[in-house]
Amino acid sequence: MRDTLYVINPNSSQAVTAGIDSALARLRRPGGVRIECVTLADGPPGVQTQQDVDRAALSVLAFAQQHQDRAAGFVTACFSDPGLQMLRELRGVLSLGISECGALTAMTLGQRLGVIAILQGSIARHWRNWGAMGIAQRVAGEVAIGRGVSELSDHAATLEAMVAAGKRLRDEHGADVLLMGCAGMAAFRAPLEDATGLRVVEPTQAAVAMALGRIQLDW
Amino acid sequence: MRDTLYVINPNSSQAVTAGIDSALARLRRPGGVRIECVTLADGPPGVQTQQDVDRAALSVLAFAQQHQDRAAGFVTACFSDPGLQMLRELRGVLSLGISECGALTAMTLGQRLGVIAILQGSIARHWRNWGAMGIAQRVAGEVAIGRGVSELSDHAATLEAMVAAGKRLRDEHGADVLLMGCAGMAAFRAPLEDATGLRVVEPTQAAVAMALGRIQLDW
Amino acid sequence: MRDTLYVINPNSSQAVTAGIDSALARLRRPGGVRIECVTLADGPPGVQTQQDVDRAALSVLAFAQQHQDRAAGFVTACFSDPGLQMLRELRGVLSLGISECGALTAMTLGQRLGVIAILQGSIARHWRNWGAMGIAQRVAGEVAIGRGVSELSDHAATLEAMVAAGKRLRDEHGADVLLMGCAGMAAFRAPLEDATGLRVVEPTQAAVAMALGRIQLDW
Amino acid sequence: MRDTLYVINPNSSQAVTAGIDSALARLRRPGGVRIECVTLADGPPGVQTQQDVDRAALSVLAFAQQHQDRAAGFVTACFSDPGLQMLRELRGVLSLGISECGALTAMTLGQRLGVIAILQGSIARHWRNWGAMGIAQRVAGEVAIGRGVSELSDHAATLEAMVAAGKRLRDEHGADVLLMGCAGMAAFRAPLEDATGLRVVEPTQAAVAMALGRIQLDW
Amino acid sequence: MRDTLYVINPNSSQAVTAGIDSALARLRRPGGVRIECVTLADGPPGVQTQQDVDRAALSVLAFAQQHQDRAAGFVTACFSDPGLQMLRELRGVLSLGISECGALTAMTLGQRLGVIAILQGSIARHWRNWGAMGIAQRVAGEVAIGRGVSELSDHAATLEAMVAAGKRLRDEHGADVLLMGCAGMAAFRAPLEDATGLRVVEPTQAAVAMALGRIQLDW
Amino acid sequence: MRDTLYVINPNSSQAVTAGIDSALARLRRPGGVRIECVTLADGPPGVQTQQDVDRAALSVLAFAQQHQDRAAGFVTACFSDPGLQMLRELRGVLSLGISECGALTAMTLGQRLGVIAILQGSIARHWRNWGAMGIAQRVAGEVAIGRGVSELSDHAATLEAMVAAGKRLRDEHGADVLLMGCAGMAAFRAPLEDATGLRVVEPTQAAVAMALGRIQLDW
Repeated sequence: MRDTLYVINPNSSQAVTAGIDSALARLRRPGGVRIECVTLADGPPGVQTQQDVDRAALSVLAFAQQHQDRAAGFVTACFSDPGLQMLRELRGVLSLGISECGALTAMTLGQRLGVIAILQGSIARHWRNWGAMGIAQRVAGEVAIGRGVSELSDHAATLEAMVAAGKRLRDEHGADVLLMGCAGMAAFRAPLEDATGLRVVEPTQAAVAMALGRIQLDW
Repeated sequence: MRDTLYVINPNSSQAVTAGIDSALARLRRPGGVRIECVTLADGPPGVQTQQDVDRAALSVLAFAQQHQDRAAGFVTACFSDPGLQMLRELRGVLSLGISECGALTAMTLGQRLGVIAILQGSIARHWRNWGAMGIAQRVAGEVAIGRGVSELSDHAATLEAMVAAGKRLRDEHGADVLLMGCAGMAAFRAPLEDATGLRVVEPTQAAVAMALGRIQLDW
Repeated sequence: MRDTLYVINPNSSQAVTAGIDSALARLRRPGGVRIECVTLADGPPGVQTQQDVDRAALSVLAFAQQHQDRAAGFVTACFSDPGLQMLRELRGVLSLGISECGALTAMTLGQRLGVIAILQGSIARHWRNWGAMGIAQRVAGEVAIGRGVSELSDHAATLEAMVAAGKRLRDEHGADVLLMGCAGMAAFRAPLEDATGLRVVEPTQAAVAMALGRIQLDW
Repeated sequence: MRDTLYVINPNSSQAVTAGIDSALARLRRPGGVRIECVTLADGPPGVQTQQDVDRAALSVLAFAQQHQDRAAGFVTACFSDPGLQMLRELRGVLSLGISECGALTAMTLGQRLGVIAILQGSIARHWRNWGAMGIAQRVAGEVAIGRGVSELSDHAATLEAMVAAGKRLRDEHGADVLLMGCAGMAAFRAPLEDATGLRVVEPTQAAVAMALGRIQLDW
Repeated sequence: MRDTLYVINPNSSQAVTAGIDSALARLRRPGGVRIECVTLADGPPGVQTQQDVDRAALSVLAFAQQHQDRAAGFVTACFSDPGLQMLRELRGVLSLGISECGALTAMTLGQRLGVIAILQGSIARHWRNWGAMGIAQRVAGEVAIGRGVSELSDHAATLEAMVAAGKRLRDEHGADVLLMGCAGMAAFRAPLEDATGLRVVEPTQAAVAMALGRIQLDW
Repeated sequence: MRDTLYVINPNSSQAVTAGIDSALARLRRPGGVRIECVTLADGPPGVQTQQDVDRAALSVLAFAQQHQDRAAGFVTACFSDPGLQMLRELRGVLSLGISECGALTAMTLGQRLGVIAILQGSIARHWRNWGAMGIAQRVAGEVAIGRGVSELSDHAATLEAMVAAGKRLRDEHGADVLLMGCAGMAAFRAPLEDATGLRVVEPTQAAVAMALGRIQLDW
């Protein structure tokens, strides 16, 4: 029985998974598909390098293969979407990525996307993705907050950094919609909208929202 | 009470609206948002020219303004998405277009989009839209079936023409996913997939599926 | 007798029309086509929102249909080019838009276009247009002066804001030619060139200049 | 006294210059700027190779320098626009190229440009130009008629080849407007429109029409 | 001592590695860097799916980590360049991919690249790569020969299929240079040039040639 | 006997040629192809304007024609690559340009290229080239140091200006790799890397490194 949408956090941080899980509360409905957020115990503490991404990809695949019978769909809940293209080779299962769906959703909320990255070193990887998606023309710019995984737990400072990045994207790069380049930080979405006056996309919510509709369509 | 997603068929054809309505059956859920498909009585029999599009835009806006209090969202159910950008100026209401959402959805199902237009004369307008969306690089090509509104009622001949267009997009243009450039023809989706071996996106279903998730998020 | 080029100001401001009219003086020639600048009385005071644009489009069309017999051509004299694509469906009449022709002309005067918008809220609409035209790669950036219609009558302050925007486009965005994103401000063109050292395109002049040649060619 | 627009045919063929000259008849007006078509005696019989282009560039420059005092403007009347960027360094003189203006004009007549080249070997050079202009996205395709300079004098066969190329651009590449990639063949424009049902741009006429307006503006 | 350029065939086929090795003969020089072609015993027989690619990526990384002390550089000798971005995180070691270098080299030999893929299913992956590289505009098209790993051993039939693909890319897609989308088939390069009249890039040779220079520069 | 790679400095500055020559020391090998750096005595002191470029092109061609019998290849050692496309028409001789190869090399070292130009007036010409190469999407920005040929001899001030430009490209434009837009300044490469923390490409070294491999392949 394919009744579960698995939202796969490929890092080993239960706190991140918990953040994702609570952000999806409003997408859960009685009688609707189960939304299960999972932590990959063998994942890295945070996905920061390309090696983290590519290692995580195989963990994500392994999880998906083990749960394919129950899966109505999979969402890769890391902004580098590890394993997404592999999951798409699994027949008959929907797979969506948060980076992908975050960007596609932002494209309906504004014209010029400003992406807030966590780490400077991830930005080149993101641009490769915008290029692969053929949407680089829509990306006004990307700015990193420059905080490592451990520093993210200081919420006030993290929000402050995100607001600063958002304002810079708005004022210097001309962004008119913001995309959070990370998972598990949905709590910052509303304050970021308030502080910048721009619509803000939290990519895990965006991806799960898209996935629910696609599951209903069985596409 | 904002409890209704209005799917607005901007032409006056009840048959098209009925086709849209039945295609959305699987997206309706007990307790979910109401999905109401409406026909604009003052619309043209079919939206074919730019003048049809631009006139329809104001009818769509008028409808939206009248129903804004009840609206959880609006979907412009015509592949030229008449009025979409105006609807987005209405505060606090989601508005999505079927051309837009059809393309965004196809971008998660394949890399090179083949678009099946109804009329040759619409293709330039569609390309302007792909350009405005910044996704022209993802569009492998667009082929028209060249049948007017009245001829579409011959379903067998219409399907045959769509299959021919789909195969041409696949074999000559290199498309690996197809997007139907029309509303109200969801019944052709499955046969078109079978005949071409490619995934096919019906844009009204794609848009409503996206809209339902967005309404739950209140974005 | 098709002897008139109608330059249609779709807003109801006679002052704007007068500004356009005087800017076209040098394009008038004895024995040449008549250039008639018209104000659409039913237009909005200024075209600021998408709704303004789309409503103006139908007024522009209505005017064109009424004057088609006399028309050697039409120019939509608003930077959102309301109705332009509809006018192109009128057989045998030239129609050009000022946004379009302003950009095409700027492409012969520099490599990287800097666009000076009046309002921040119009910039996304302009980017959709640059995308639809397939020239987004040539646009270095767009900066708004952020002054409403009523504030534009303070010429000194408006010019100061335009110069500031132009310098920012030049120094931060790398623009090497400027395009004024408005109609009726031709008087600012020369001072803006002097202040920035860049060539500046006034789009109504650009469009009418192109139109005159096209009328002679009967294209 | 700057009263002459020089239309410079950089090859040595008087027949080509004569063809250009007669095509410009309708752009001449009593009291208007003089339009003088010149043949560069030291040019190659036809501009076919990059070496032809780059050698012609210096001849064009030499001519322009000698005639700068009389020049209201220069048009490089060869589809490779030899010397155009150099001419633009001459202060206070307008310079336009036929390839450039042909493409810009075609962009107002259709969405997807089909370019008819004379020689296969020129197509790569043209694509470099569309790329440099940032408009490659608007070029649906380019097809050569594959006839050398000497063969072009057989008008019937040349027209037949152009019609075949135009139809191929329309039917296989999806072009909705055609651009003739050559100078001196204005006589084929109307028959090509008739045979293909598409608007056809003759680039020398396009460039001179644009130049006349620009000279009036003194831009 | 970093004296070896490792050319890593990520599939387990010794025959492919042998083909690569012999193709590199002309790049070997007395006193020059050692060029060692290696087969990854744990690789798949052929890299065909995304799963093959992503699994191979980790094998490639493991090999590189083990040989980093001896490595002057690494070349990923599979057209999907498995692991390339991970290798680039290894400090102080050059890493180049054959798909990447094949395309960059082809960009110096022609303007419009025609890519010959082995399998239809790889083409979408390749387009993602051209997009990520930001060079999609230079790719005229991609055609697959549609032969699996086992069928490639029939050299005559494989060459015939490659020639057919090359001619189709030249005649229908307008390619003026060909890029072989595979490793280990250098023997087909010259006959393919002869049959099509176009320059042909063999990507492993292209990548190793670039790597040798870069090693000398110590970049 | 084709045994020499000619690196052609198209300006008449022996100092520039000497700078190029010493930068290539590490690319010279016993038994390898001779690398000969030449100064074109009839070149301008520095290539600054388009006229300089286009005049230099013919000098470069003349040199190449005279030395074709001895030439294993030619490198145009000026960032405007004068004559490159003409050289490519010489049969059987490799020709590469430093702008071209510098950019292609930078594309393997980072995702977003920051180009350091000498003169502001060259930037438009460079953008035309990035467009012609179809790689404009990869160029984050270009900043000029604004120093003329004579000022470049003040090395400390020149380096300081290059570091400032590099930091601006990194911090404001988001560049993650730098490309020096000039020849003969290889000595600044390492200090520029140290000061900015980014990889820096010296284009003459990049081009000669690529050329050596291509000569070995006889492509």
